[in-house]
Amino acid sequence: MKVNVLFSPIVADELYFTGKTTVVIDVLRASSTIITALNNGAKEIVPVGTIEFAVKVSGGMFGGQTLLGGERNTKKIEGFALGNSPLEYEEKVVNGKSIVFYTTNGTKALTKAKFSENLFVCAFLNLSAVAQHLVSLNKNVEIICAGRNNFFSLEDTVCAGKLVSEIISLKPEVEINDSVAAALALNHKYGSDLPKMLRESDHGKLLIENGFEEDINYCSQLNIYNTIPYYVNGVLKLMKEVD
Amino acid sequence: MKVNVLFSPIVADELYFTGKTTVVIDVLRASSTIITALNNGAKEIVPVGTIEFAVKVSGGMFGGQTLLGGERNTKKIEGFALGNSPLEYEEKVVNGKSIVFYTTNGTKALTKAKFSENLFVCAFLNLSAVAQHLVSLNKNVEIICAGRNNFFSLEDTVCAGKLVSEIISLKPEVEINDSVAAALALNHKYGSDLPKMLRESDHGKLLIENGFEEDINYCSQLNIYNTIPYYVNGVLKLMKEVD
Repeated sequence: MKVNVLFSPIVADELYFTGKTTVVIDVLRASSTIITALNNGAKEIVPVGTIEFAVKVSGGMFGGQTLLGGERNTKKIEGFALGNSPLEYEEKVVNGKSIVFYTTNGTKALTKAKFSENLFVCAFLNLSAVAQHLVSLNKNVEIICAGRNNFFSLEDTVCAGKLVSEIISLKPEVEINDSVAAALALNHKYGSDLPKMLRESDHGKLLIENGFEEDINYCSQLNIYNTIPYYVNGVLKLMKEVD
Repeated sequence: MKVNVLFSPIVADELYFTGKTTVVIDVLRASSTIITALNNGAKEIVPVGTIEFAVKVSGGMFGGQTLLGGERNTKKIEGFALGNSPLEYEEKVVNGKSIVFYTTNGTKALTKAKFSENLFVCAFLNLSAVAQHLVSLNKNVEIICAGRNNFFSLEDTVCAGKLVSEIISLKPEVEINDSVAAALALNHKYGSDLPKMLRESDHGKLLIENGFEEDINYCSQLNIYNTIPYYVNGVLKLMKEVD
């Protein structure tokens, strides 16, 4: 079992992921929001790569059963019902709904990896469940850090490092490379105080400036869910039980 | 003074670098080879982004005064006089010569950053000289890690971290971001034993397999040159004295 970490979705093209087992991490906030929404009863999430496509897809769905959600530059998009704060995706809002979801980085990473054989969503919120499932699959894994506008983000890399660390604790013979060594080192340095790391990260600072400090506290929680969003036929659903 | 580190040249486009001060790092081996060749008397190095362009450019130059150098997948290119081992670029070979130079990662990074106002080449070999010069310029700095086929490489990142660490030791008020924090942490973890780090890196292992272990020992030397290659009018020359 080999693991590789991509520090930006742009370093590989769509076909790179064909037939692979891929994990997308966008801690602040798309991954955390997807995990939360599905755990709060959303029927499915339709990740889209452009705002135009979000509007088009939602137009073909039944009124009342579909919500548009997401953000551009941390802000809710005009005409969308929901932004990208996981705290908005409460049970009373999302239960039973299909959510068409666009974000600057996370959903772009998901749509880029759409040809993967297995495609999962990970954040700190569900990290152990993802690690256990990957070990049970026993396939080579590509971990995509969604990053910010193609650039590196610390929080996604620390999450990737923590995920690999947990995989290795379950399966010590995992083969690692430069990218994994770096992610592990960054988790070792920054992963013991997640709220502090998130607050001091570039993206965390920006969210605090924009009034989203509560999101940071929420997203720093480790393993509050034991479920994994997985991508199949263009939508994300919850894999209720880890095999 | 702000510093930013790009872990792959692909995360930004050519226009991103317009008017900026940029440093390209490709420890194994393009940066180390460029520094060595110019210090051994090469008149200039013409970095090119494609092999076809290398052949075309060299065809228009005076015979005997021009050498084709570089590699594809660590091997010398057919018809080229020189590969990408710094040890080939001895004084008796390169003195007075123009070298048209193509490599898989390093020269692509250089040509991508060609619109920079200032464009320098750094490796462990000349790291302190580059740090001192950047501090004297006192401009925001973009550091490009050439990486490998758009992917992350540990040795370039450790070199970037060591460069920023030295800049900060000279100018503590430098503003850092996620990418710099990561590079600093990786230098802290891996930067104290450079031969070991290079041997254990993905690229180092590949070079050893291909018989280039001596290159690794050579490239791990810190500050054996006090000179900086800089890019102007399409060629790299030596900035003989650090201001």
